[in-house]
Amino acid sequence: MGTSLIHPTAIVSPEASLGDNVEIGPFTIVHGNVRISGDSTIESFCEIGYPANDPGSHEMLEIGSHSRIRSHSVLYEGSRFGDGLVTGHRVTVREGTKAGRNLQIGTLGDIQGHCQIGDYVRLHSNVHIGQQSVIGSYVWIFPYVVLTNDKHPPSEILNGVTLEDYVVIATMSVVLPGVRIKEGALVGAHSSVSKDVEANSVVAGSPAKFICETHEIKFKDDAGTSAYPWRRHFHRGYPPEAVLEWISEFS
Amino acid sequence: MGTSLIHPTAIVSPEASLGDNVEIGPFTIVHGNVRISGDSTIESFCEIGYPANDPGSHEMLEIGSHSRIRSHSVLYEGSRFGDGLVTGHRVTVREGTKAGRNLQIGTLGDIQGHCQIGDYVRLHSNVHIGQQSVIGSYVWIFPYVVLTNDKHPPSEILNGVTLEDYVVIATMSVVLPGVRIKEGALVGAHSSVSKDVEANSVVAGSPAKFICETHEIKFKDDAGTSAYPWRRHFHRGYPPEAVLEWISEFS
Amino acid sequence: MGTSLIHPTAIVSPEASLGDNVEIGPFTIVHGNVRISGDSTIESFCEIGYPANDPGSHEMLEIGSHSRIRSHSVLYEGSRFGDGLVTGHRVTVREGTKAGRNLQIGTLGDIQGHCQIGDYVRLHSNVHIGQQSVIGSYVWIFPYVVLTNDKHPPSEILNGVTLEDYVVIATMSVVLPGVRIKEGALVGAHSSVSKDVEANSVVAGSPAKFICETHEIKFKDDAGTSAYPWRRHFHRGYPPEAVLEWISEFS
Repeated sequence: MGTSLIHPTAIVSPEASLGDNVEIGPFTIVHGNVRISGDSTIESFCEIGYPANDPGSHEMLEIGSHSRIRSHSVLYEGSRFGDGLVTGHRVTVREGTKAGRNLQIGTLGDIQGHCQIGDYVRLHSNVHIGQQSVIGSYVWIFPYVVLTNDKHPPSEILNGVTLEDYVVIATMSVVLPGVRIKEGALVGAHSSVSKDVEANSVVAGSPAKFICETHEIKFKDDAGTSAYPWRRHFHRGYPPEAVLEWISEFS
Repeated sequence: MGTSLIHPTAIVSPEASLGDNVEIGPFTIVHGNVRISGDSTIESFCEIGYPANDPGSHEMLEIGSHSRIRSHSVLYEGSRFGDGLVTGHRVTVREGTKAGRNLQIGTLGDIQGHCQIGDYVRLHSNVHIGQQSVIGSYVWIFPYVVLTNDKHPPSEILNGVTLEDYVVIATMSVVLPGVRIKEGALVGAHSSVSKDVEANSVVAGSPAKFICETHEIKFKDDAGTSAYPWRRHFHRGYPPEAVLEWISEFS
Repeated sequence: MGTSLIHPTAIVSPEASLGDNVEIGPFTIVHGNVRISGDSTIESFCEIGYPANDPGSHEMLEIGSHSRIRSHSVLYEGSRFGDGLVTGHRVTVREGTKAGRNLQIGTLGDIQGHCQIGDYVRLHSNVHIGQQSVIGSYVWIFPYVVLTNDKHPPSEILNGVTLEDYVVIATMSVVLPGVRIKEGALVGAHSSVSKDVEANSVVAGSPAKFICETHEIKFKDDAGTSAYPWRRHFHRGYPPEAVLEWISEFS
């Protein structure tokens, strides 16, 4: 188990594979079908590698290095996360989730599994990701957003949502089954998106309608600076190489 | 305690009544005022039989056989569930909930108690059921739906919502106090239902308005098959006798 | 540690300051940077005084006397609560929250920190309070309400929401960044509030529009009694001196 630091009250299967400098907090359970890479922390009251119901999902749960899983979270077996996964408290991630690097899942996040997530995606608190969702990289989803998948619930036909790179979905919005939101588009708060959204456009309302191009949204406090694409001005938490590319893109 | 399997870290009151083949997971607390019937599993980090504030609600918590309570859930004393209760993670059910057979409550479900729920009801993730709600059988409620009860909040006058059999409420919808949604009706996503809904009709919007009859909604992929009543085609998880009845109903 | 009652499975730092008659439940963690005043209860599976990321937020977590923190809750260091704090289950409160007396936070509440909350505030289940929110006294917020703060997400410019005394926000509503809702105003269910709301007025819809004055809303069952201001008739849980003042105000 390398040089891992396991709290005496934790219950860690001897079959779990823990890298160097992995810390397991009090009262946390780690099942056997789990690989946690180095320099990661699993906090208190978590259950990691929870057995999947789905008999085809007994693959290993893989968590990349430099990850931090906050308290009371449950991660199922059969999912895979790149390096730098960070979660809030009480996160649930079911089997079949395939995520890239540096995913952040906020407190109360509920990932239903069988979905794809790119790199550097940010899910704020209490986001619900339905099965068959396909999420690109550098996407932002704000609290109480639901990505749906069943056009005629309940049915056996799932049509996941697709969010391309740099998409932003503001709080309390629903994206209906099969909808594709194209690169850099923005969905306003409290919207219900029933049709595909063009790249770099803003939609809002229920049903959501086209409002303007994203570059037409200006900061009030600055002299006419566009608020979008957000990568022009918002750089916190991103890798230097991405930020340098973004800076050169807009200079 | 029959042949129950209690994890050594669990704290189980000697007054709790556990049937044969009941499993209690790690770090779980079972209070005394509880009866769990056979072949049931209570997973980790749960608190079962949590004492009710309400002095009139110190009845026993009764959980039927073949039930499964997933991790981090809290069930109060003074509620009663038929056989085959299944919950997701982090479910809260307060006192005075009277539910039939095979209720499924999704992750983060919040049942406020003092409510009635029929047989084979499906609550997806993060559903909020207000006090005085009356829910029939074979009902489906999707994520982030709220059943309210107070017309002029805050007040002391509660008017619960009534959902008749086979009702479906899609994600992120609110049902306002005292509303009755009649048999087989469908509420579209992101709706606010302020008036009674007729049987087998579809309503949507905020406030929700009549859209069409449910049988007018067709699957895109099939040659004109109606998506509703859903019991015509969706049978997963239901008992054979119900499915046989549904098949003969539509043949 | 006075005469505190610490469950043998709890992990309590010797540096934590606990008043007389403080009870710490099973499997609960109390960090060192915490002061809990007398006659308070911390229930099971909680983590109290969770270390803040923000290096400027390593102040002590202070919880007033006669408080009750229900199970599975997480309270960060660097926050301060007056006497009589009561929470539901699975509450999260981050650093920099400064709250007055007798705050109630419902199950699944998510307080993002760096916010101010007055006295006798009631947050029902699953309320999300964004950073920089300023909430007066005697405010009511119902389930699945989000107070936002970022006009052009993601950005580094936060504009919190202000709710004045006696404001009521009904379920599943969003208050957009920088909005001020003035004393005694009421926001209807499933609304999105994008502009300031005048005192004692009712707004609803998405975007929310003026409906009427609050006093024009009458109870159906009584002969023309106004439902608002609610303090005229709803007194449960308030201190006798406030209730006496309210009674004299309307007599």
